[in-house]
Amino acid sequence: MKSIFFTITVTMVFILPLAVRAQQTDKILYKNKNVAVAERVDDLLKRMTLKEKVMQMQNRASGKASEIASIFSGESYGCTHEMNMNAYDCAVMYNQLQKYMLTKTRLGIPIITAVEGIEGILQNNCTIFPHALAQASTFNPELITRMTSAAGEEAQAIGIHQILSPVLDIARELRWGRVEETFGEDPYLISQMGIAFINGYQKYNITCTPKHFLAHGSPSGGLNCANVTGGEREMRSLYLYPFQKVIGATNPLSVMSCYSAYDGLAVTGSPYYMTDILRGELGFKGYVYSDWGSVERLRTFHHAVETNDEAAIMALIAGVDLNIDASYNNLEQLVSSGKLDIKYIDLAVRRVLTVKFTLGLFDNPYGNPEKVNKVVRNAQKIALAKEVADESAILLKNSNNLLPLNLSKYKSIAVIGPNSNQVVFGDYAWTMPDTKEGTNLLQGLKEVAGSKVAINYAEGCDWWSTNTTGIAQAVKAAQDSDIAIVAIGTRSTFLGRSPKYSTAGEGFDLSSLELPGAQQQLLEAVKATGKPMIVVFIAGKPLAMPWVKENADAVLVQWYGGEKQGRTLADIITGAVNPSGRLNVSFPRSTGNSPSYYNHFVTDREEPFDKPGSVSDPKGHYIFDTPEPLWNFGYGLSYTTFKYNSCALNNSVFTYKDTVTVTVEVENTGATDGKEVVQLYVRDKVSSVATPIQQLKAFKKEFIKAGKRAIITLQVPVQELTLYNARMQKVVEPGEFEIQVGSASDNIIFNKTIVVK
Amino acid sequence: MKSIFFTITVTMVFILPLAVRAQQTDKILYKNKNVAVAERVDDLLKRMTLKEKVMQMQNRASGKASEIASIFSGESYGCTHEMNMNAYDCAVMYNQLQKYMLTKTRLGIPIITAVEGIEGILQNNCTIFPHALAQASTFNPELITRMTSAAGEEAQAIGIHQILSPVLDIARELRWGRVEETFGEDPYLISQMGIAFINGYQKYNITCTPKHFLAHGSPSGGLNCANVTGGEREMRSLYLYPFQKVIGATNPLSVMSCYSAYDGLAVTGSPYYMTDILRGELGFKGYVYSDWGSVERLRTFHHAVETNDEAAIMALIAGVDLNIDASYNNLEQLVSSGKLDIKYIDLAVRRVLTVKFTLGLFDNPYGNPEKVNKVVRNAQKIALAKEVADESAILLKNSNNLLPLNLSKYKSIAVIGPNSNQVVFGDYAWTMPDTKEGTNLLQGLKEVAGSKVAINYAEGCDWWSTNTTGIAQAVKAAQDSDIAIVAIGTRSTFLGRSPKYSTAGEGFDLSSLELPGAQQQLLEAVKATGKPMIVVFIAGKPLAMPWVKENADAVLVQWYGGEKQGRTLADIITGAVNPSGRLNVSFPRSTGNSPSYYNHFVTDREEPFDKPGSVSDPKGHYIFDTPEPLWNFGYGLSYTTFKYNSCALNNSVFTYKDTVTVTVEVENTGATDGKEVVQLYVRDKVSSVATPIQQLKAFKKEFIKAGKRAIITLQVPVQELTLYNARMQKVVEPGEFEIQVGSASDNIIFNKTIVVK
Repeated sequence: MKSIFFTITVTMVFILPLAVRAQQTDKILYKNKNVAVAERVDDLLKRMTLKEKVMQMQNRASGKASEIASIFSGESYGCTHEMNMNAYDCAVMYNQLQKYMLTKTRLGIPIITAVEGIEGILQNNCTIFPHALAQASTFNPELITRMTSAAGEEAQAIGIHQILSPVLDIARELRWGRVEETFGEDPYLISQMGIAFINGYQKYNITCTPKHFLAHGSPSGGLNCANVTGGEREMRSLYLYPFQKVIGATNPLSVMSCYSAYDGLAVTGSPYYMTDILRGELGFKGYVYSDWGSVERLRTFHHAVETNDEAAIMALIAGVDLNIDASYNNLEQLVSSGKLDIKYIDLAVRRVLTVKFTLGLFDNPYGNPEKVNKVVRNAQKIALAKEVADESAILLKNSNNLLPLNLSKYKSIAVIGPNSNQVVFGDYAWTMPDTKEGTNLLQGLKEVAGSKVAINYAEGCDWWSTNTTGIAQAVKAAQDSDIAIVAIGTRSTFLGRSPKYSTAGEGFDLSSLELPGAQQQLLEAVKATGKPMIVVFIAGKPLAMPWVKENADAVLVQWYGGEKQGRTLADIITGAVNPSGRLNVSFPRSTGNSPSYYNHFVTDREEPFDKPGSVSDPKGHYIFDTPEPLWNFGYGLSYTTFKYNSCALNNSVFTYKDTVTVTVEVENTGATDGKEVVQLYVRDKVSSVATPIQQLKAFKKEFIKAGKRAIITLQVPVQELTLYNARMQKVVEPGEFEIQVGSASDNIIFNKTIVVK
Repeated sequence: MKSIFFTITVTMVFILPLAVRAQQTDKILYKNKNVAVAERVDDLLKRMTLKEKVMQMQNRASGKASEIASIFSGESYGCTHEMNMNAYDCAVMYNQLQKYMLTKTRLGIPIITAVEGIEGILQNNCTIFPHALAQASTFNPELITRMTSAAGEEAQAIGIHQILSPVLDIARELRWGRVEETFGEDPYLISQMGIAFINGYQKYNITCTPKHFLAHGSPSGGLNCANVTGGEREMRSLYLYPFQKVIGATNPLSVMSCYSAYDGLAVTGSPYYMTDILRGELGFKGYVYSDWGSVERLRTFHHAVETNDEAAIMALIAGVDLNIDASYNNLEQLVSSGKLDIKYIDLAVRRVLTVKFTLGLFDNPYGNPEKVNKVVRNAQKIALAKEVADESAILLKNSNNLLPLNLSKYKSIAVIGPNSNQVVFGDYAWTMPDTKEGTNLLQGLKEVAGSKVAINYAEGCDWWSTNTTGIAQAVKAAQDSDIAIVAIGTRSTFLGRSPKYSTAGEGFDLSSLELPGAQQQLLEAVKATGKPMIVVFIAGKPLAMPWVKENADAVLVQWYGGEKQGRTLADIITGAVNPSGRLNVSFPRSTGNSPSYYNHFVTDREEPFDKPGSVSDPKGHYIFDTPEPLWNFGYGLSYTTFKYNSCALNNSVFTYKDTVTVTVEVENTGATDGKEVVQLYVRDKVSSVATPIQQLKAFKKEFIKAGKRAIITLQVPVQELTLYNARMQKVVEPGEFEIQVGSASDNIIFNKTIVVK
């Protein structure tokens, strides 16, 4: 979404005494909370003018509390948003706005307050949790539910009813700037994380908004909003899967449409996607919230229609109930001129009102400003932000167990790189990119090291430019130190603010997956000093770093880790925290060696003929390289070691209605307590249509004390083995399937074959 | 296809006197040439045993003439092939084989002789014409018809009946090794070239085999045979278009199935693609020839079935009539065991026999060995190979009109680079890659320059390795010369022979589109000498060469130009030939800046939001670059200049049945005679589904003498403006369309709007 700021003027607000209103309320059916929602909606709908209905299908940005009357002019809108105030001021304003809605609009319809909440609430001063990609690399759904529950408590105090997350897009196109907003490349992991994410907010009576429906994450060329190439089978098997699972499990009251077209058909304007599939097949019961501008873009971007009115009609008939841009402004006239059947408006308004009644807004739309300063960003929440960060970081390399550092052995540490003295938040954080909020790596290390270890800091280079003048200073810092920590990566933006230095975020797509700017040169210069080098990769997406894999002594990845990111890294580097994150997106070997996701079709990397490359030095199946990733999905190291002792299945032959239950015994064979992520993948050995060579279908993160064993039970319903056959029927084809259990997609320890009859 | 060599043994052949056979023939209905083909087929089919039918559905490799009886053992097969003999020996052998078929098999069924013929006939000593990509860059269909007519004359003398070309795949995935076999990235140009190609062969009663049906050219990751991602709309609008046009215009008697899956469905095993669409929608009447091994690969590669028998049944029912691998061996038993209905066999055999009767093989299957040495690779044909090469080369840069070189001004020329002393043929040429056949650039320049100009040759580096030891010698050659010509590019293979040095060809895919090996270093070293530098890019695909565009003084592209390639280049460099080729594939700016094809959807490169990159130095819409190509489709320079004086349309309002006729006056305003390619593109200004920002719909190559004018007429049937709407109906949507006329896709000189009612 993109912010659209309306011009607003200031007017005084007159508030009717609440007691008077309460008397009136009892007599009006739709205001009676004891009446069923559907009846209340029916009653209210009958009372509404066409104009009032059209208002319910639109968003109106909030302003200051003192501006409410002038902004809303006695009208109730479907929803509102505010993105600049601090939490307390917003809570006060929202309460006044709701009072205005209940008392100063003709029918007293409350307004839905919607806000971004992907990494915590987008309201100044709220807790900033790790970004979505980092949430999923924890492989710990329960933790994410705790996280969004904490964010939900903040939101509820502010009076927020709707969160414009989670992103269920699939990260297969790494050039795309929004990879950081996704849960990664695996549809099952995305589903589990999406469900966990929504569960937390729902505890506080807040609806989430899964997005971007549908298939938005694989734009042509990686360019934001470009057409997504794909077929019906890929749409159903891949892109639809997370929405199906998440909607089925959580019944969200809203879903967001997307900007893009799939196979040339603009999804926001398509009844097939927005109604037949979303409601008919997935059973979605809430209202569809347009992406910001996605309706008018049917004209301006897709050129699918000639006028904004046509765009409005197209989107409304498709099933977009509430539109954020201005193109629904004219619906009233389109009905009166006979160009639009009012039934579409009634349907959309019914859905919006149903959500308002379901959320209880007619009975209590208010937040609790007095609680704001107690619940928002309190110590517990900041600690939780750190806990998520702790579990999200992924250790990819650790030569000779260099990590964790025993600080008593180091007199000086060089801390180098563009992300070393910078907190990097993801897109949609409330802070500006160059914020002083949060703890960065340098600060975290200083907290941990205290005064015993000298820290020699040098930026070296920025994220972006080819300016190499700072590298000499970085080399000196390394030379002066016992060890060098180099923090490189990307820098996200927030809705395009200060775009100059951004290398990731919405609208910030890369044509190359190599390290931007002078970062590679910085690494090589530091390496040349001969000092041990720890590379900390702080980024919103994987980049191609074969040199780093080859040359760094240790590699630690942190997807934007929220406000305690630097302390988490320091704690991991020094051993206070044992890393337990696992890769949720595979790292490519190079820009052109993509896609690199693990769950490719069987045919996609198999050598059909000769092995190219030198006969004496084969690379294959590319002439100069293998198509496999540099680091694969599910991979991640720990400071301890885990041994998989045994793996047992409840049966070897199953029917469609059965569940495969796998029991795995894992032993922590090291000297450190730690968490292991036990992963279960399936492969359909023979399938009439292409199926992935591996598909994650269960996982469990388990804390195991040093020297102890744990029994982990994983379950896969046989119905998860479905495919869409040549006639697009969703079936499980009888035959053999592999059940693969291991610690990464490319480290399968047990491989058992089952038969489905 | 891939060669499968059968073990063969030697036996004597006994030939029945022809007179005796002729007497018998009159009495047998199917042997009577005056009877209609369908009746002859019916009659023959009734006489055949199941085993004989199954033989007609298979291919049997030929051997030496002396080995015929032992190879064929009295059985007639559907078809045969031979790829190692010289033309004359093959002609003699084929005649003996046909005699054997007519006289020594029970029913006397002749055999189809099939051979590769993409760049001339794949039989030793035949003329080697430019490769497919070069054929299309001529933008001269009439010339290509002359070319394949010449090849057809050779083939007819040899006794060949079927050519396993043209490739109608679309070159959108440049990492793919087979880009060189395509006609480029534009479906309309591909169609026109495909039709022209087939027309030439058909003049000699030879059927062509359009391939690879369907959508084979966009494999995932550029890896040969990988799944092609795409939807029904893209399949119909893009991939199907050339097959539809070519089959409609030429009625080929054969089509080849493909190895890959589309949206997960293996095309070779799909009745939807191989029968419903190919026959039902496109009206194809011939027989389907499997790609080599594509049937058994339903098991071994796609894992769609468990056994070869299942693969055979799947492919046969889908509509693959004749199979080159061994998996149809067992069809007889599958029928007798009740696993396969014989009706599928009868249908396939009927199609094969129909082709044999239609080609007249029952009446005369013979070649003409005595003509072979007269018609094969005679002077006219070699001259024609050069003519095609002359028209295919593309001049992309010519700073200060450096070219053509006036040789009287140069005392010495450095000729440098891996492709300077090497004739580079495309995959499927009969020669080995390191052949001494043909004229290379160095030889061509020596022929042209005579003894007046010293030529300093140095290889500099090879195509492939990072060995830079030869660069110093190249630098010296440049330093010692007045000017440097550096010939770089790719090196193709032939079916995997000597794979070590190959950087293109079937199975030889690149993960990077940068210049392989040390070629970039070679260029930079030569540039550093300060001598004027002409870069000759000889390749089977575009690579990313922004440095070359920036730094070379002139850039000349030659897609593998056949056996006279070097002389063509020399003639262009020195002005004897005025270049007139145009880019049929766009050049990408970098590996990650792709796809770079010109006919992208409107949304695919439009900036939806902010412009990323530095505010003061915007690049956009990628952060560091624009998504537009380095050199765009349709572009190419001449030694003269053309002025577009006027452009007139026959009307401004059209109906579905009309034809838009555009009359353009073009003037050669330079001092040199030359050929201009006038190009017409359309854009649908508003379309309910995504349509390309430009689509080539007509072009004309016109020779215009210096100072003269020409009137060029271009026609576009309004039915060419169709799209597949949301309900997948093929319609022209009323409204405005742009008719763009110019000299390249990015050099539109006249842009007129028409209305379709």
